[in-house]
Amino acid sequence: MSTPLVSIIMGSDSDLKVMRDAADILEGFDIPFELTIVSAHRTPERLFNFAQSAHTRGIRVVIAGAGGAAHLPGMVASLSPLPVIGVPIHSSNSIDGWDSVLSILQMPGGVPVATVALDGAKNAGILAAQIIGSSDQSVQNKVAAYKKELAQGVAQNYEKLERIGYKDYKKE
Amino acid sequence: MSTPLVSIIMGSDSDLKVMRDAADILEGFDIPFELTIVSAHRTPERLFNFAQSAHTRGIRVVIAGAGGAAHLPGMVASLSPLPVIGVPIHSSNSIDGWDSVLSILQMPGGVPVATVALDGAKNAGILAAQIIGSSDQSVQNKVAAYKKELAQGVAQNYEKLERIGYKDYKKE
Amino acid sequence: MSTPLVSIIMGSDSDLKVMRDAADILEGFDIPFELTIVSAHRTPERLFNFAQSAHTRGIRVVIAGAGGAAHLPGMVASLSPLPVIGVPIHSSNSIDGWDSVLSILQMPGGVPVATVALDGAKNAGILAAQIIGSSDQSVQNKVAAYKKELAQGVAQNYEKLERIGYKDYKKE
Amino acid sequence: MSTPLVSIIMGSDSDLKVMRDAADILEGFDIPFELTIVSAHRTPERLFNFAQSAHTRGIRVVIAGAGGAAHLPGMVASLSPLPVIGVPIHSSNSIDGWDSVLSILQMPGGVPVATVALDGAKNAGILAAQIIGSSDQSVQNKVAAYKKELAQGVAQNYEKLERIGYKDYKKE
Amino acid sequence: MSTPLVSIIMGSDSDLKVMRDAADILEGFDIPFELTIVSAHRTPERLFNFAQSAHTRGIRVVIAGAGGAAHLPGMVASLSPLPVIGVPIHSSNSIDGWDSVLSILQMPGGVPVATVALDGAKNAGILAAQIIGSSDQSVQNKVAAYKKELAQGVAQNYEKLERIGYKDYKKE
Amino acid sequence: MSTPLVSIIMGSDSDLKVMRDAADILEGFDIPFELTIVSAHRTPERLFNFAQSAHTRGIRVVIAGAGGAAHLPGMVASLSPLPVIGVPIHSSNSIDGWDSVLSILQMPGGVPVATVALDGAKNAGILAAQIIGSSDQSVQNKVAAYKKELAQGVAQNYEKLERIGYKDYKKE
Amino acid sequence: MSTPLVSIIMGSDSDLKVMRDAADILEGFDIPFELTIVSAHRTPERLFNFAQSAHTRGIRVVIAGAGGAAHLPGMVASLSPLPVIGVPIHSSNSIDGWDSVLSILQMPGGVPVATVALDGAKNAGILAAQIIGSSDQSVQNKVAAYKKELAQGVAQNYEKLERIGYKDYKKE
Amino acid sequence: MSTPLVSIIMGSDSDLKVMRDAADILEGFDIPFELTIVSAHRTPERLFNFAQSAHTRGIRVVIAGAGGAAHLPGMVASLSPLPVIGVPIHSSNSIDGWDSVLSILQMPGGVPVATVALDGAKNAGILAAQIIGSSDQSVQNKVAAYKKELAQGVAQNYEKLERIGYKDYKKE
Repeated sequence: MSTPLVSIIMGSDSDLKVMRDAADILEGFDIPFELTIVSAHRTPERLFNFAQSAHTRGIRVVIAGAGGAAHLPGMVASLSPLPVIGVPIHSSNSIDGWDSVLSILQMPGGVPVATVALDGAKNAGILAAQIIGSSDQSVQNKVAAYKKELAQGVAQNYEKLERIGYKDYKKE
Repeated sequence: MSTPLVSIIMGSDSDLKVMRDAADILEGFDIPFELTIVSAHRTPERLFNFAQSAHTRGIRVVIAGAGGAAHLPGMVASLSPLPVIGVPIHSSNSIDGWDSVLSILQMPGGVPVATVALDGAKNAGILAAQIIGSSDQSVQNKVAAYKKELAQGVAQNYEKLERIGYKDYKKE
Repeated sequence: MSTPLVSIIMGSDSDLKVMRDAADILEGFDIPFELTIVSAHRTPERLFNFAQSAHTRGIRVVIAGAGGAAHLPGMVASLSPLPVIGVPIHSSNSIDGWDSVLSILQMPGGVPVATVALDGAKNAGILAAQIIGSSDQSVQNKVAAYKKELAQGVAQNYEKLERIGYKDYKKE
Repeated sequence: MSTPLVSIIMGSDSDLKVMRDAADILEGFDIPFELTIVSAHRTPERLFNFAQSAHTRGIRVVIAGAGGAAHLPGMVASLSPLPVIGVPIHSSNSIDGWDSVLSILQMPGGVPVATVALDGAKNAGILAAQIIGSSDQSVQNKVAAYKKELAQGVAQNYEKLERIGYKDYKKE
Repeated sequence: MSTPLVSIIMGSDSDLKVMRDAADILEGFDIPFELTIVSAHRTPERLFNFAQSAHTRGIRVVIAGAGGAAHLPGMVASLSPLPVIGVPIHSSNSIDGWDSVLSILQMPGGVPVATVALDGAKNAGILAAQIIGSSDQSVQNKVAAYKKELAQGVAQNYEKLERIGYKDYKKE
Repeated sequence: MSTPLVSIIMGSDSDLKVMRDAADILEGFDIPFELTIVSAHRTPERLFNFAQSAHTRGIRVVIAGAGGAAHLPGMVASLSPLPVIGVPIHSSNSIDGWDSVLSILQMPGGVPVATVALDGAKNAGILAAQIIGSSDQSVQNKVAAYKKELAQGVAQNYEKLERIGYKDYKKE
Repeated sequence: MSTPLVSIIMGSDSDLKVMRDAADILEGFDIPFELTIVSAHRTPERLFNFAQSAHTRGIRVVIAGAGGAAHLPGMVASLSPLPVIGVPIHSSNSIDGWDSVLSILQMPGGVPVATVALDGAKNAGILAAQIIGSSDQSVQNKVAAYKKELAQGVAQNYEKLERIGYKDYKKE
Repeated sequence: MSTPLVSIIMGSDSDLKVMRDAADILEGFDIPFELTIVSAHRTPERLFNFAQSAHTRGIRVVIAGAGGAAHLPGMVASLSPLPVIGVPIHSSNSIDGWDSVLSILQMPGGVPVATVALDGAKNAGILAAQIIGSSDQSVQNKVAAYKKELAQGVAQNYEKLERIGYKDYKKE
């Protein structure tokens, strides 16, 4: 496999059921990535080593997912010059996701985290592709093609709905 | 001036007092940018034209700020292949900023917006620089230098605080 | 079927299980309607075409349902002179419905959306009938008759409850 | 003055500073209206008389504003076949407006209230005009013209902003 | 049965599964009560008749339960000189109960509702007994005896827990 | 002065600016009352003594106001057979009043607190009068007369508003 | 068993399923503890006796768990000179845990409660160990060893994940 | 000065106006402390060095204050075996303090932070004293004496209030 351009990290293996969507998207775009666990609270040294060196290994975007008092995305952002995408996760110890969202989103001036929707790992993958695509025309074309597919998926649905009527329509 | 790489747009001129921070940051990084008003709700045609063509004009990142039921960042994201950074603004018609945050952050699968903190235009500017820096070593170096300055600013403060004691310390 | 007076649109076919209530109400009032899918984020061109032409096709009220960062009702309102009824939907990617409610309700000055309760598609259908009834006495009479039926339904329940007592009462 | 088509009511004279925006909009559209105080909690008989008779006096739309545990819009909706527009007001006894919004928006099935944004009386006036315009082409044309003016206002601002630059721009 | 002193009303028969707890408490205290359905939004005339006459029939306390935009307790309070206890119900159309709580609790000056916890019908029954007990020593004694029973129930639990240890303790 | 029937207590003298409204209402109804400070957290013994003896001194209703993590109303309710009215106060250490409301309202089964609106001391006074009035016709008559005055106050306002028009109306 | 150093109390035996985690942690650290039920609202005398005497029995830390309007931790803190750790519990009568959190956390100046996360009894146990460890090197060493184990657990997971890949990884 | 037992740190010098209350309390208890600035996001290396070594310098409790996405208390807790008291600060970039509270309180299992009320630095100081007092009788005695002073302060107020009456009472 090629050198990864995107690094997907998460605070715990229980976050994997959400975060795998980011990996699937990047695979679909043929963008090389790595995926692992880095816990801000349980493995702080690993966090430091990861965040200080990621850009030196060729990584261009970090995607970090965490739940509850979620410090992983913000601490990576504090230690790395790379753009960091934060995925708030509605983990089992979260109060309806609000803690995850606020502790990732509300970063202080100087240290941004590009936050996506609660459990929005799929969008984190697309955003990483858009970031790479901002300087790589072939990736940007793939993003544009992906959006066309989204529109076609909707078109299939509304054509079917208009044809058979709402009473008989079943969501597949 | 050079062709802008970043486009800063906002829903109303009342958002300018927040959004100018993004411009100041980009100016500090010597990254060419443009800044204007595009209202999703009052000038929807302008929104369409802007969003469909931005990437063809050399724009690589869009920063969009809006408040209340803030649709501008999401609608640009729906129409453009570029990474879009959303700045929720605590405008006068907002319920403590919650509407601004949620209507920008909670985008559906397929259409991400890279959301920063409420009124976080400064961080939007830094994130745009990080995105450009992810494929431009000189910009990434500037981001790294900027972070060092942040640390030095803190160092000046704690040295002074430790020297003169908290009772006599005055925030400047 | 006659030319539709009401257009019911929704962002995704997963919203149909909520939005069909609006259709059922209109059918009960013999008000011709159409129902389809228009995604603000996945089919923005379709959104534009729909919203700019609806009033020219004889549509008098639009009912638009969406969830999460719900931009569909507001964008239709921005492009159409028609009254737009917004139905916030508690979709799977929503934070307990708050994002859906706030991103539909909190429209800026100049561009109203008539928002109903979370998942309140039934009420959206009734409101559409009331709007048409405001200039059509026969529809207004139907609305008044519908309200009488509601009262009679309650009367049946309290008569039964008072007759058999709360210990034996079973909700049907 | 002609027979009023719209009735603007509010729970207290302290709501007038918000609700006058609805009156000003209707005046601008040359739509005859009446404006008065009806308190659900302090004058319940007046509420009943008002709501049961409004449609018999030629009123076609009711705009009702209230704050805190705001029952006025919902109780009018319960008693009248007319479309009722509810304006949640951030009154002095309100918890940041949340009580006002929820006690107007979250009406049960059968009794809709067309809710607008917190303190959104201006939008209530426009929505009333759109409702009347849905069966009156001349009013609909005025609404369309009003929207064009909104766009022109934005255009003046962005032209000025692009001409003089954001550093020298002053919001008027 | 004796003339009821307490009237328990609710907006819908779906509220009965919560509100029956109030009835059971009053039965346990031998306080005569009535229980029925009064819908503020579907049977407003019934609401008026009920609220204006309850005190003339010997009723001394009203317990009113409702969910969502819950107007029943407040409208009874507006029409009756009696103390009104409001029970916010987490009904199916409620946003996690917040709408029910706020639209009952946040009454304007002049028209109080004695609000109890979400779904707290049991406490509404006890509070009604305390109100009657404030001028009836025998009822106040029953309330005091009830509180002793609560303490004894806790004592049984902690004695068992301390005896067998937390590892083997099973909640009955 | 006669033996007090109502006891008004509050957690701190900083709550007095809110709680005096309850005293003024009771004075207006000629209901004897006492008013003092009892802090659940700073004077717990005083709390115990107060709560265990209030009903033996002829007190029939307790009004207790507190802010933040407000334990005073609930602890009095735990120790006394009297009805306890809780007034959540938006004190300086409160998060927008939410902590005050929830820590008073959400009492467990068995120990009700009759909660009124945030800072709703006036309504606490009226509710106390209604409770006393539920077994004292002359007080109930005063409550009914008070409500008529409220209606007359509204009538004066709407008559003036209708006479001079909303443009010239000034709230007094 | 040795004299307990930590006392774990809770408001009801239904809280035991959460609070047992604190006991398990202390057992793992060989710190003697006691565990029982003390209800602030149902057994207020027991609360007083417990809180006033705990420090005289050799207890050095109290862990108190409660849900809804949770007054147990704060009332113990008001009566005892010991550090009190509060565990907000998402009990069945709680509004998503917010009432539990706020009524424990938001204590007034002078009476702190050391609050941990919602349902965070495990962390309460660790915090109690850290407090004891702050003056007992052997306990502090156990805490440090415990943290190493946490890191090793994460290491096992990420090594496995990196070895077999995210597609085949199963959380155990 | 003696070797500090408590270390008070904060994320920025703008937090000093809140955090100085903790220092003043410790000074009042004659507990030696240090106070400085450590920014999790701007000086992450300093954070690491501080947190890994604090317990080796004789520090027994850390008090850490931060606002917005507040990561300082949690990251210190992750790196140190000491008890860490977190003070959520309502800083200028915070959404009404909710982000500060949740990102400090909601720590994952294994890594507790002893959280106090929003802006509750005074209570953080008292809690630190209680922790030290749990193994130092003279400090525990001071805490008990402090609580008596609180009670005496309340007593002065209620005696004055009862003497001069609420109408003439002025808060000092």
